[in-house]
This record gives sequence, structure tokens and C-alpha cells, in this order.
Amino acid sequence: FSGNGEPLQVLEMVEEELPEPENNQVLIRVLMAPINPSDINIIQGRYPLQPAQLPATAGNEFVGEIVQMGDKVENFALKEHVVAYESGLGTWSEYLLLKAEQIYAVPYDLPLPAAATLTVNPCTAYRMLKDFIQLKAGDCVIQNGANSAVGQAVHQLCKHWGLKSVGVIRERPELIKLKQDLLRLGATEVFTEEELVRTQLFKSNCLPKPRLALNCVGGESASNIAKLLDYQGIMVTYGGMARKPITLPIGPLIFKKHIYQGFWITEWVKRNKNSWERSYMLKDIIQLMMRKEFIAPKHNLIPFRQYKAHAQQALTLASKTNRKFIFDMRENE
Amino acid sequence: FSGNGEPLQVLEMVEEELPEPENNQVLIRVLMAPINPSDINIIQGRYPLQPAQLPATAGNEFVGEIVQMGDKVENFALKEHVVAYESGLGTWSEYLLLKAEQIYAVPYDLPLPAAATLTVNPCTAYRMLKDFIQLKAGDCVIQNGANSAVGQAVHQLCKHWGLKSVGVIRERPELIKLKQDLLRLGATEVFTEEELVRTQLFKSNCLPKPRLALNCVGGESASNIAKLLDYQGIMVTYGGMARKPITLPIGPLIFKKHIYQGFWITEWVKRNKNSWERSYMLKDIIQLMMRKEFIAPKHNLIPFRQYKAHAQQALTLASKTNRKFIFDMRENE
Repeated sequence: FSGNGEPLQVLEMVEEELPEPENNQVLIRVLMAPINPSDINIIQGRYPLQPAQLPATAGNEFVGEIVQMGDKVENFALKEHVVAYESGLGTWSEYLLLKAEQIYAVPYDLPLPAAATLTVNPCTAYRMLKDFIQLKAGDCVIQNGANSAVGQAVHQLCKHWGLKSVGVIRERPELIKLKQDLLRLGATEVFTEEELVRTQLFKSNCLPKPRLALNCVGGESASNIAKLLDYQGIMVTYGGMARKPITLPIGPLIFKKHIYQGFWITEWVKRNKNSWERSYMLKDIIQLMMRKEFIAPKHNLIPFRQYKAHAQQALTLASKTNRKFIFDMRENE
Repeated sequence: FSGNGEPLQVLEMVEEELPEPENNQVLIRVLMAPINPSDINIIQGRYPLQPAQLPATAGNEFVGEIVQMGDKVENFALKEHVVAYESGLGTWSEYLLLKAEQIYAVPYDLPLPAAATLTVNPCTAYRMLKDFIQLKAGDCVIQNGANSAVGQAVHQLCKHWGLKSVGVIRERPELIKLKQDLLRLGATEVFTEEELVRTQLFKSNCLPKPRLALNCVGGESASNIAKLLDYQGIMVTYGGMARKPITLPIGPLIFKKHIYQGFWITEWVKRNKNSWERSYMLKDIIQLMMRKEFIAPKHNLIPFRQYKAHAQQALTLASKTNRKFIFDMRENE
């Protein structure tokens, strides 16, 4: 895209010569690249980070295979599968010329949709569960937007760590099927917003009061989960799908010692690019993925070259539906 | 009072026999006891802490002199001035029978109004400035309700520690005089709510962006000071005078790493009753008071036995005016 605007208006498919990797560079054939809400926001110009210059290629995540390497590249092999190790790489492309330090090798048999969506959503879920409050097995986590990609990751990680995981979703068609899907992923309980307001399960101690609330909606939905927080509970906000601010009554802030914070994975990665926490986290999630204890979010694959045909669905509805849309570059040659 | 309700309806003056202090007990002649907003809230039943049993005596702070001691009392002397070392002592009384560990000795020449109001408001200001973010000289603190007793304490402590201290107050009669008073106490700048919204002093870097915001109002006033917070800034809420919730836009939470927390001195003191931090703080504030670098909040003295005559002003307006109302028990015998 060469200017900010609605994706369908500003995105263009451009043909370029394949470059030769030199020195520390790697040429990668992209296999899959997901459409994240933040990708859309960047194209629209509604994101605090913007490409260094325009025109720019959109996209922050991918999985690809190495097809050519400069003579100074170490620790990688031809055909090896790699994912993005930093953001802003412009991954909606069939080939990428990157530096070796911008990529991260993943097992060849890691499912491609899981690999393509490894570095943003699962890592957001992982850090929010780890870094704000020390949870022990049996503790309760509540989240709204529970069917988002991060939400699905939270349920799976909670199950793995023995945490009770309560999900809140909007009333919608096929509600029962969606609830079943989330329960199968690891949710302890799934409520609609209306059910949450009326439930007695927290009052009756059938469910422990949440010590951590994860908010990607805002507005009334955020207030509803904040109200249930335990003494010294913390709410972490990582999105605002409803585009409405959070309203907090003052009593719980003062007398229940609640804390309200935000989380942004891009900023975390910038601060922790080569930290042991990041390396440990990536290995941990990949291991879970290999054991099928952590699966990719529900997704639709979109043939990359025919993106315009799928565009309405893929680019406009991406942030509003249950599904992650993932560009599939494999059939294009 | 023997039941919750509006102070003027439920408060009664009761005559009792003077008790004899035994063992570790101390009989104190109360000299002054302030009326704090929390005292009113406790009487009304709108406070999370309530007296263990009714009827109860209201009041949490005082300064008094020791008139009689049990035979096991150490470290105190007759005539010594003491203040409350814990809350809920029921200090609106001419005499108090307390245990030695419930009181704290202060210098004889500490001004009585300062001593009587030592343990709640100045300590609230002190802890909020110390415990949430590490401030260095030149950093900026912003607060609404800047003319409250805590607000006056914040300005004075900021001046002492070399912090820039921006106060926000409501539009009111005698605005200029009030501003002058606060500037004299140590405020760097005082804005009305309307002036704050329009000021360019932060945008032009004439004032550094606040790293800490102190909120005792809520509603729009809280949003206005939150908006000015620096990256990684924190807002601490210790009151909600406007009785309106706080509204937080989501962007700054995520992208500016703001943190929203609450503070309650009663809970802090419970956790830190005999900590070195508390001991250090009390000595530090008393020293400042002795040097006249920290003065008592503006106040009116009310003859204790004639409280009904001053009642409208003292009990109803206490939380709405600039002034702290302090019962004066000295003229009563």
C-alpha cells in the first residue's frame, strides 16, 4: 500500500524481480501469512506503529521455507521452516528477503497454520497469563472476546497450567456450537455477556473469583468482568473491539486493590527480543503445538493471488468473525 | 451513635464515668479530633469498615495528653502528647482509655491541629508519592481535588522533594485567593478543570508530562488528568468525591502503558503497623511540621460540647468545603 485507507482501496498486488540474498540475508518462500486485526489497523493508519516509508508491504506474521541463503548465514538450512522474529517485516508476499536475525526456525512438521500464527496471539496470551500476577493451579482467569485467537490461546494455556478459564462471548447464532468448541479447547465455563451478569456461580463459590481478567472489548463488557475480580485482582487490556472506553467504579480500586493495566506484545517483543523469557516461551508453545495440546485458531485459508475475490470476507470481516483468515501462498506458482 | 444514618440524626453526646487505667492502659484527655470524610461515611454506613459493635463512638484521629497510666505502661510519660496509632479508636470523646500500643508520642510543641491530623491525610499523600512509581527531582505530579487536606499535603511534600506539583480545582468563588494559597504551599501550577483542558503548557513542554496522577474525584476530572499522563504513567485513586466512575480510553492503557490503581491508608497501616517505613514516615512528617515546612490543612475549630450549634457546617459541609473541621475539647471542663 502506498497510502493509508481502507484495505480494499489501498492494497495492490505488485510483481517484482526475485532478489539474490547476500552475506547475512535469506530468501524465503512464504507459505502462509495470517491477517491480524493490527495489520488492518496499520493499513488504515489507526495504529501507533507505521511503516518507516511508503509504499510498504503489509503483514507481520508468516511461515515460510528457506530457498536461498547468503554466504554468511549460519544456523539455518535450506528448506528449513521459519517464522518472523520481529514485527513489521511486510509478510503478505510470496517471497521475502530478510536478515538471518529477523527469522526463527520452527520444526518442519509443525502445522503451517499454527506456525504462521505463532508469534503474536499465542505469545500475547502467554505473557498476559505469566507477567501480571502469579497464578497457581486452580486460580481463575476470566476473559471477554473469548473466541478471539488470543482467547482460544488463553483457554488452551489455562488448561495446560491447571487454571480455571472463564470465557465471555457475545450472543450470536450457533452459540451452543461455539461454546462447545471453547469448552473442548479448555474453557472451564463460557457465558454470554447477559449470562455473566446473572450468574450465581461466583457468588456461590462454585467458581473462584477471578484473580486475572483479560479484556479485548472495552465498554460494558470490560466493566462486567472487572466487577467479578477478586481482592487484589488485575485486569489486563489488550484490545478494544467495542471501540468504547472502560468505566471503572472507584470503590473496588480503593477497597479491593484492583489494578488496571494494558499489554502490547509488539512493545514486549521489542524489549525482550533476545531474552531467555522469549526463547523459553517460543519453545514451550511449539512443544505444545507439536503435541497437539495447542492448536491454531479456527481459520479460513485464502489463496493469496485471488485475495480480491475473498476480500470482503478476508479484510473487512477479519476482526469481526470467529475466524482468523490466513493467506495461503502455496498454490500460486 | 447506635445506628447508621445521617450524622446529625444518629450522633448523641453521652456522659460516662471516667475509668481507671489498668496494666497496659493509658487514660488520655483528648485535646483535638478532626472530622474526616471517612468518619462521616462510617456513621452513614457507607464505608467498608464498620465498628465491631454498636453503639460506637465515631472518630479516628486525635491529639491528646496522657493524664493517668496503668502500672505496666512503659515508654510514655504523664502530660506527654500522643496521637492514634491505629484506626477505629472512637476519638470524638473528651477522654479515651487506650492500650499503650494504640498510641504514638509526638513532640509537646507540635502544633495541635497538625498533630490531630497527622496520621491519615499526610500519610496518604506520603505513601502515594513514594510507593507507586519512583520519582526523581523535577518529575511532575498532577492531582485533582488539590485543595483537599490530602491535596495540601501533596503540594507540601512535592515542594520538599523537589517535585513539580500541578493542582486541579473546581471553578469557585475566591478562586484567585485559593490558587495563591496552594502556590504558597508548594504547587507549581494550579488550574481549574476548564483551564486544564485548554492549557498548552504540557504540549509545549513548559511542564513535564506527569508521571503520577492522584485522583480523589472520579468522573470527567479523573479522565482529564489521566489524559496528560506520561508514557508508563500511573494514576492512583484514593477518593471519589464526584461519586462518578472513572472512564478510561483503551489506547493509552495499551500503547502508553498506563497503570490505574487505588490506595487506602487504613489498609496500608494495617499491613504496616510496626514497619520501619511507617516509623520513618511519621518521624519525617513530624520533623517537617516542627520546621513549619508542613502545616496543618486549613481548618475551623469547633467547641466539642457545642457541636450541635456548629453541626450543619461541621458535619454536613465537612467534605464539601476547603476546610477541615476539628473538634476542640480544651474548653470543655
